[in-house]
Amino acid sequence: MRSLLILATAALLAGAAPPKKPLTPNDIVAAAPASAWRTIDPDNLMVMDLASGGRIVIQLAPAFAPVHVANVKALARGNYWDGATVYRLQDNYVAQWGLNESDRPWPKGVTAKPPAEYVRPLKGLAVRPLGFADPYAPGAGFVDGWPVAYSAKANWANLAHCYGSVGVGRDLSPDTGTGGELYAVIGQAPRQLDRNIALIGRVIDGIDKLSSLPRGTEALGFYKDKAQFVPIARIRLASDIPAGERPALEYMDEKSAAFRDYLRLRANRKDAFYDRPAGGVDLCNVQVPVRKKG
Amino acid sequence: MRSLLILATAALLAGAAPPKKPLTPNDIVAAAPASAWRTIDPDNLMVMDLASGGRIVIQLAPAFAPVHVANVKALARGNYWDGATVYRLQDNYVAQWGLNESDRPWPKGVTAKPPAEYVRPLKGLAVRPLGFADPYAPGAGFVDGWPVAYSAKANWANLAHCYGSVGVGRDLSPDTGTGGELYAVIGQAPRQLDRNIALIGRVIDGIDKLSSLPRGTEALGFYKDKAQFVPIARIRLASDIPAGERPALEYMDEKSAAFRDYLRLRANRKDAFYDRPAGGVDLCNVQVPVRKKG
Repeated sequence: MRSLLILATAALLAGAAPPKKPLTPNDIVAAAPASAWRTIDPDNLMVMDLASGGRIVIQLAPAFAPVHVANVKALARGNYWDGATVYRLQDNYVAQWGLNESDRPWPKGVTAKPPAEYVRPLKGLAVRPLGFADPYAPGAGFVDGWPVAYSAKANWANLAHCYGSVGVGRDLSPDTGTGGELYAVIGQAPRQLDRNIALIGRVIDGIDKLSSLPRGTEALGFYKDKAQFVPIARIRLASDIPAGERPALEYMDEKSAAFRDYLRLRANRKDAFYDRPAGGVDLCNVQVPVRKKG
Repeated sequence: MRSLLILATAALLAGAAPPKKPLTPNDIVAAAPASAWRTIDPDNLMVMDLASGGRIVIQLAPAFAPVHVANVKALARGNYWDGATVYRLQDNYVAQWGLNESDRPWPKGVTAKPPAEYVRPLKGLAVRPLGFADPYAPGAGFVDGWPVAYSAKANWANLAHCYGSVGVGRDLSPDTGTGGELYAVIGQAPRQLDRNIALIGRVIDGIDKLSSLPRGTEALGFYKDKAQFVPIARIRLASDIPAGERPALEYMDEKSAAFRDYLRLRANRKDAFYDRPAGGVDLCNVQVPVRKKG
């Protein structure tokens, strides 16, 4: 069958001495040197195994929501989520999971009412600017592999709600949520949530195990019957998994030449499939490259 | 359980004489008068029924890709897709379906090699501007319910690749695809495809029946085994379905006061859940309201 995106190598089949073919973003990723990649600390990787066998790996962002991230780590280490489920799937929005927070006391080390870690100071962050307008903030770019929005004038920065972003479910403001119920974005970036809710990280492997779950039929995508709830076998930090069994991942450093080239091509596709480069790209469509280590 | 987005009515539970609560975009949609809605011509609705029972309704856009849309209508009326399947699911990108185009001759009325209907003249379109910068084009807005990008200076406009957009699979340029293989966007808007491929419409009901399918494990999300292919029972135009059984849908007119208010609130959430309005919104995150008629 024909494909929407034929691999560019097909362009080589026509002649014996093909001209140098234009590079794609994937070509840049494949050719990026080891120096362009940064290993993710296993203490900032949270591993969620569904009872069905699917594994979801979440990179945590303590630089942006330190108290909420510390909570989530304490919850994982305290086995708080034993018996937890995925109980909400709202199409083009979020998958949500956890435990009814009234069902079980908080483990040691959990701050029950964390501060509103919705923004942090821009100062101290070395942001590589996106280079294109962002409708949601004065500035947008990347820092330590994270897509961020910011205001230089007002000195704030926030993690952006992109596909795969993980945040803390909460009730109405000023509640900020404790961390026992989490959501992941599975649709068009709901950037209106930026600066209104605490993001603690993002799914960097296995988001398809959440995005392909059946949608809930109740209001806001909640599953109607308990029988539909998707059981979670366990949630652990990678650092608590034996070294040989834990996932090991790395992201492309936005300060690298490879990322510079990758970003340029994400904004300007011009290859065997693309004739008209856009000349721009939105923050969440850049998709910082992540790969398995080794 | 707590929810990410508690229904705003919860804010009313506290007191006997509640203050007037701030409106949400959903409030605007619910209160919009009949005059704000436009019925979609059943001749521009294509209905795809999966063998499993799921129904996907696609609104066609003849004003943007007349030859490709005419092809798709001829294919539906000619029962071209008998035995077709969904054969590709690439996470955060597209679901793709159809029939291997070499398997069956084109029905009468199909143009085998359509022109590149990737843009059309802006002239003749009454666009309501989005009002915020779009990184992918000089202008962005809405016309007849469609999200469009455009250049006033160069006099072109294109349908934007948003969640649910439906396009024509093709091989490498300058091939434009005939229409026998279609895709729908199921992730972050891949706007880099704008002006590089023919969009023929968008899924306006049942996109979750595609977005929740298992992801393919081959390159580009193709299913590995034929056993994974998802059989399609039939694809028809709504106008060929008896009047009592066909879907009937309407969209919110972007020229209405209701849409003006809806757009303003999509860019400025400030209600029981949202404390910090973004002050902007991207084209594909506006999500033109569509509802069942009656």
